[in-house]
This record gives sequence, structure tokens and C-alpha cells, in this order.
Amino acid sequence: MQRRKRLLDTEAILDAALAGIDATGRLTMAGLAARLGVSASSIYHHFSGRTAIVEALRERMATAIDPPPLDGSDWGEQVGRWMRGYRRALAAHPALIPLLNEQTMTAGSVLLGYERIAVLLRGNGVPLREVVLWISVLDCYALGAALDLAAPDEVWRPERDDLPTLGDAITAAPRGRERADEAFDVGLDALLTGLRGRLTPPLAAGPPARRAAPGR
Amino acid sequence: MQRRKRLLDTEAILDAALAGIDATGRLTMAGLAARLGVSASSIYHHFSGRTAIVEALRERMATAIDPPPLDGSDWGEQVGRWMRGYRRALAAHPALIPLLNEQTMTAGSVLLGYERIAVLLRGNGVPLREVVLWISVLDCYALGAALDLAAPDEVWRPERDDLPTLGDAITAAPRGRERADEAFDVGLDALLTGLRGRLTPPLAAGPPARRAAPGR
Repeated sequence: MQRRKRLLDTEAILDAALAGIDATGRLTMAGLAARLGVSASSIYHHFSGRTAIVEALRERMATAIDPPPLDGSDWGEQVGRWMRGYRRALAAHPALIPLLNEQTMTAGSVLLGYERIAVLLRGNGVPLREVVLWISVLDCYALGAALDLAAPDEVWRPERDDLPTLGDAITAAPRGRERADEAFDVGLDALLTGLRGRLTPPLAAGPPARRAAPGR
Repeated sequence: MQRRKRLLDTEAILDAALAGIDATGRLTMAGLAARLGVSASSIYHHFSGRTAIVEALRERMATAIDPPPLDGSDWGEQVGRWMRGYRRALAAHPALIPLLNEQTMTAGSVLLGYERIAVLLRGNGVPLREVVLWISVLDCYALGAALDLAAPDEVWRPERDDLPTLGDAITAAPRGRERADEAFDVGLDALLTGLRGRLTPPLAAGPPARRAAPGR
């Protein structure tokens, strides 16, 4: 029973932390203690501090994202499915995004997702040095796309006379969630197409020595 | 002199608003009045409210971004230069990003940049309906990449034994600002390559009727 009680307390702390972040965009130990009606020291019994709480929220978020299965299916589709899950999980709590972004990731489930992305990229010819660059690109796009889901239905209001093309384009485009979802898919497809293109350089694109470039 | 005094006040309000956002991630009229040591009503003399202040900050940010010149040079390079300026301007105040994101854009200089991007996309064959989707994609990537500049030098700490590929990749990759900058360029290049690819579909990719699809 003692162990069960502690687990419940940990979850209650994370629930309150997330509710506070959703409401205010901030997390302080004093604010969290006030929200829970406990002393800060009773929170420190469960978490070493603010960083550990944010990392636990990252871990909790990751449980909603299926890591790539590495089942031999098309790697681009595996990356795409992970990206869709990542965006959806981030978008559920957009105010958490800056907090997740500003500290080093140590949450195991999240890192396991990145490990599998790294395996897919390496296995399909991305040079070792570039794997982290591509993971960064995917990260940036998922973060931005998650924020985009928090944008208003009317993103742009071109009230001036000198914006005719933008005005026409907005009139012709889908709106709201449909715009955000279609845009995400279009951009993800372009990113993966661009990546595939880099992995199959045209023959004789450079001197033979380039084939033995470091890291390949 | 009266006019000059008012302009100075407006700038002082925006300076204080931005300093408050940088420090706390928030903007409230009461907090801003307290920061300036004035009554809230004296702020309302210059701005209709919080939304107008955030929009004025967006306008001010846009003055640091050169819109595409539409000078006939390569459209991808024009888009790329605008994206680099956009990311740099956003990254100067990452705490402002969520506030900019959550309200409709009406700032003229910002919209002019989008108008020119729309002209470039339309002029190079992007269907009218897709122009806003692509603008959204570029927006998402710029927002995410600007946030990435606020990430710590050590983004991932793979302390577990079951993350060998990620660990090797992190060791081989550039770090800190260099990682973020190289990643941004790699992803931007892939996005623009992917977009170019969509604009030049392979011949006989579909029945002839597809060539007259609506919006082309």
C-alpha cells in the first residue's frame, strides 16, 4: 500500500504541474506546492526539482507516441508515423513546449524513439555526422507544427489593398484544423522526399574519392 | 513635439512589453502598467489592448526581416533568405513566439513578406489552394527552428545502454549553435527540394485531364 500511495502522489504532482503549465505557461516549485496545497519539501520527496518534473512530463508525453517499430517496412513511413504521433502529443499541451525545449532530454522513452529514428536514418545511408542534424530537423518541424495547432482559425487577416495574392490564396485554402493538418502532411512529405533525394546522389556527381567520405 | 512625444511613449511601451515577455513569458496589461510605473489607462491611450501590443511587436520584429525582393533571382534562394531572417528574428525573443502564434496576424510588414512568398510560390507553379499550405509549412519550420536555438547545447543525454546509435550520432555531430545552424540549412534545403519536386511532376504521371486540375 505504501508503494501504491507514493505512485499516486507522483502522478498527482505531475497532473497538477501540467494543469498549472496549461493555465499559466509556467512551472515553479512554490506555485506547484500552492496548487497542491502541500509544502514544497513534500514535492522534493518525489522529484529532485523542476527539471525532474519537466522531464517526467516529457516521459509521460512519450508514452502516447509509438516509436518506429523497425519492422522492415518503408523507413519514410515509419518516420512519418512517429512524427504524426509526436506532433499530436506536443499539441495536446502547447504551453509545455517551451519548457520541454529549454532543457536536456534524459527521459528514456523519448530517447528510445530518437534511437530508433537514428537506426532508420543510419540504415538508409544518412552519414553518421548528419543523423543528429536530421533528428533536429524533424524535431523543429514537429515543434512548429504542434504550435501551429494552437494558432487561431484565422491565421492571417490581409486587410490591406496591397496583398492580393495572399488574399486569394487564403480564400482558396482550407481553414483551421484542416489547413494545419494538410500543411503538416505536405511539409512532412517534402522533408522526407528531400531526405530521400540526398541519400541517392546522382552517379558521377563527384570524384570517386567522395564515395569513401568519412562517416559513410 | 506632441507627436514626437507620443511616438517615444509607444516605443517605451513596446520595449517594456518585450522585456516583460522575455523575463516571464507573459504579457498582461496590469503587469505592463506596473513595469512602466503608469496606470493601465495611459497604455490604452496608445494601444487598444494586449492584442494590439503583441501585433505591434510582430510589426517591429518584421522590420528586421527583408521580404523577398521579387527581383527575378532564383525563387528558392529568395524564400531561403526570407526564412533565415524570419528564424533569426524569432529566435531573438523565443518567449514571444507563443504569443505571436496564438493570435491572428494583422501586422502589415509581416503580411507583406507573406504576400511576396505567395507571389513567388504562385509564379512557380504552386496551385492556388496549396499556397497557404506551403506558407504554413515554412512558418512551422521557422518557428520550430527558432525554438531550437533556445535549446541547451546538450539537447539529448543518452545515459542508457540501449541507445548506441543515438550515442554514436551525438558524438559525431556538431554541437550547440553549430548543430542548430547546420540542421536548419539541411532541413530548409530538403523542404525546398521537396517543393521543387512537386512543381515538376514526371511526364505522363496521370491521365491528361489532371493537367487542367483546378487552381493551376
